[in-house]
Amino acid sequence: MDAAARAEEFRRRLDAAADATESALDALLAARALPGEIVRPARLLEAMRYSTLGGGKRLRPFLVIESARLFGVEGESATRTACALEMIHCYSLVHDDLPAMDDDDLRRGRPTAHKAFDEATAILSGDGLLTYAFDVVADPATHADGDLRATLVLALARAAGLGGMVGGQALDLAAETAATPLTIDETLQMQAMKTGALLRFAVDAGGILGGATPAQAEALQRYGKALGAAFQVADDILDAEGDTAALGKRAGKDAERGKATLVGLLGLDGAKTRCAALVEEATRALADTGLGERTEILAEAARFVAARRN
Amino acid sequence: MDAAARAEEFRRRLDAAADATESALDALLAARALPGEIVRPARLLEAMRYSTLGGGKRLRPFLVIESARLFGVEGESATRTACALEMIHCYSLVHDDLPAMDDDDLRRGRPTAHKAFDEATAILSGDGLLTYAFDVVADPATHADGDLRATLVLALARAAGLGGMVGGQALDLAAETAATPLTIDETLQMQAMKTGALLRFAVDAGGILGGATPAQAEALQRYGKALGAAFQVADDILDAEGDTAALGKRAGKDAERGKATLVGLLGLDGAKTRCAALVEEATRALADTGLGERTEILAEAARFVAARRN
Repeated sequence: MDAAARAEEFRRRLDAAADATESALDALLAARALPGEIVRPARLLEAMRYSTLGGGKRLRPFLVIESARLFGVEGESATRTACALEMIHCYSLVHDDLPAMDDDDLRRGRPTAHKAFDEATAILSGDGLLTYAFDVVADPATHADGDLRATLVLALARAAGLGGMVGGQALDLAAETAATPLTIDETLQMQAMKTGALLRFAVDAGGILGGATPAQAEALQRYGKALGAAFQVADDILDAEGDTAALGKRAGKDAERGKATLVGLLGLDGAKTRCAALVEEATRALADTGLGERTEILAEAARFVAARRN
Repeated sequence: MDAAARAEEFRRRLDAAADATESALDALLAARALPGEIVRPARLLEAMRYSTLGGGKRLRPFLVIESARLFGVEGESATRTACALEMIHCYSLVHDDLPAMDDDDLRRGRPTAHKAFDEATAILSGDGLLTYAFDVVADPATHADGDLRATLVLALARAAGLGGMVGGQALDLAAETAATPLTIDETLQMQAMKTGALLRFAVDAGGILGGATPAQAEALQRYGKALGAAFQVADDILDAEGDTAALGKRAGKDAERGKATLVGLLGLDGAKTRCAALVEEATRALADTGLGERTEILAEAARFVAARRN
C-alpha cells in the first residue's frame, strides 16, 4: 500500500471503530436496569450519555479493537473492552473540567458536563462512568474466560488509578501552583501517567484479549508507550499552535496557566523532532511483534496521532 | 449464649474486623508503586489515606469477613474484599461531602477531605479510591480463582454504580430541590440504592467467596436487604435524635435541608417500629441459610445496627 491508501484505510478503520463503539455505548447506557441494579435515575443517565455519546475520535477504542484484531480477535470482547476504556477516558474529562480542577466551559465544542447539567450531577456521572467501566469488563458478556476478565480489570484499574491517570492529573494540578516548574523528566512522567497510561492499556488489552506471547506483549507495550508519548507532544504542539474552533476546546490555555508542556521545555522545533522520533520508535516496536504487515494499521495510527490537527 | 455475652462477642469480632481492615488498608495504601503503576504521588496518596485510615466502625468490612466466615473462608480473600468495599464507602463519603454535593465540613469528627486538603485533591482522591477498589478485588492476591474475582468485581460495580450507590446519591440530591417530596416508596428505593446496595454487597461477597448454594445466597440477600433498610431507618432516627458530638458529623441536617427521611414520613415511633421489624426479618433470613448458630453473630449485627448511637 502507498501512503495515501494506508491513510485512507486507517481513516476507514478509525470510523468503523468509532461507529461500533458509539452503538455499543448507546446500548450499554440504555434506560433499563441490569440484574442487580435497582433503577437507573434518568437525569444521571442523561449526564452519563451526554459525556460519552456523539463525541471524540474514539482513538482509544480504535487501539483496543485493532490491537485485538492483530490476533484475530473481533466482536463483543474487543468492543466492550473498548467501551469500558472510553467510559474511563470520558469520566476523566468530566472531572478534569470541573471548576475545582481545570475549570473548562467547553469540550468537543459543547458545554462541559457541569455547565450542561450541574456540578453535583457532573461529579456523580463521572463516578458512575468509572464504576460502570469495571462492570462492563467483568461481565461474562465480554469474554467467556473469567480469569482473562479479571486480568483486564486489574490492568485497567492500574492504568486509570493513583499510579496512572488519576495520579497524573494530581501531578499536573500540583505543577500549576508549585514554586519551581517541572523538569523535562518530571513532565514526561506526569504525561506518561495522565495521558499515556490509558493509551498503553488500550494496546495491552488487545494483547490480553488475543493471547499475545510475552515477547509480543512486551513489543506492544513499547508501541503503546511511544504512541502515548507522541500523543502528548502532539497535544502540546496543538495547544501552542492550534485554534479554538478546530480543537473544540480553548487553545493556548496550557501556556496561559503555566502548565508544564514539552513545547515550553523543548521549544516548538524540539517538540516536533521528538514527536517524529517517537513515531519511529512505535513503528520499530510493531515490527518486533513478528506479526508482519497486519501491524501496518497501528503504525499508521502512530503517524496520525503525531500529525493530527485536533 | 445470653444477650450480654452475644453483644460482647459481637463487639470483639467487630473490633477484630476493624483491626484487620485497618492494617490491610494501611499496607495497600503504601507509598511503593505496584507493577504497572508509575509513581504514587505523595499528596494524593496522603489524601486517600486520610479518608480511609483511622476511622469508622468498619461495619461493611465486618459483614464481608463474617459472612465469608459462615462458609469457613478466612484470611486475605475476605480481608482484601473488605478493604475494597471500604474504599468505595470512603470515596463516596469524600465526594458526598463536597461543596457541590452535601457541603459538609465535618466527618468522623475531623475536617472533611476538601477542607483538610483542597477540592481538586478530594475529587481525585475519591476517584483514586474507587479505581483502586477494583484493582484490589481483581488482583490474584485476593483469590486464586479468576472467575470468582471477576464475579466479585461485577457485583461490586453493580452495587456501587448508577443503579446502586451513585444512583441513590443522585436521587437523594434531586429530592432536595424537587417540587414534591418523595413518597415512602420512593424514599425506600433511594435509600436501598444509596446505603443499602453496599451493605447488601458485603453479605453477597461472603457468599461468593464461600461458595454459597443458590438457596443460601438468596437467604443472605434477604438478610442484607433487611439489614441495609434497618441501617438507614436507624440513621434517620439518629439524625433526628442524635447530637453532633456523638455522631462526629452535624446532627439534624437532614430535616434542615428537607431531605427525604423515614422519620419525616413515618414519625419517630413509626420509624422505630419499622426498624424492629427489619431486625426480625434479618434474623429470619439468617435461619433460612441452614447454617445454624454460626449465623448468630450476623443476627447480633442486625440488632447492633438498629440500636447504634453513632
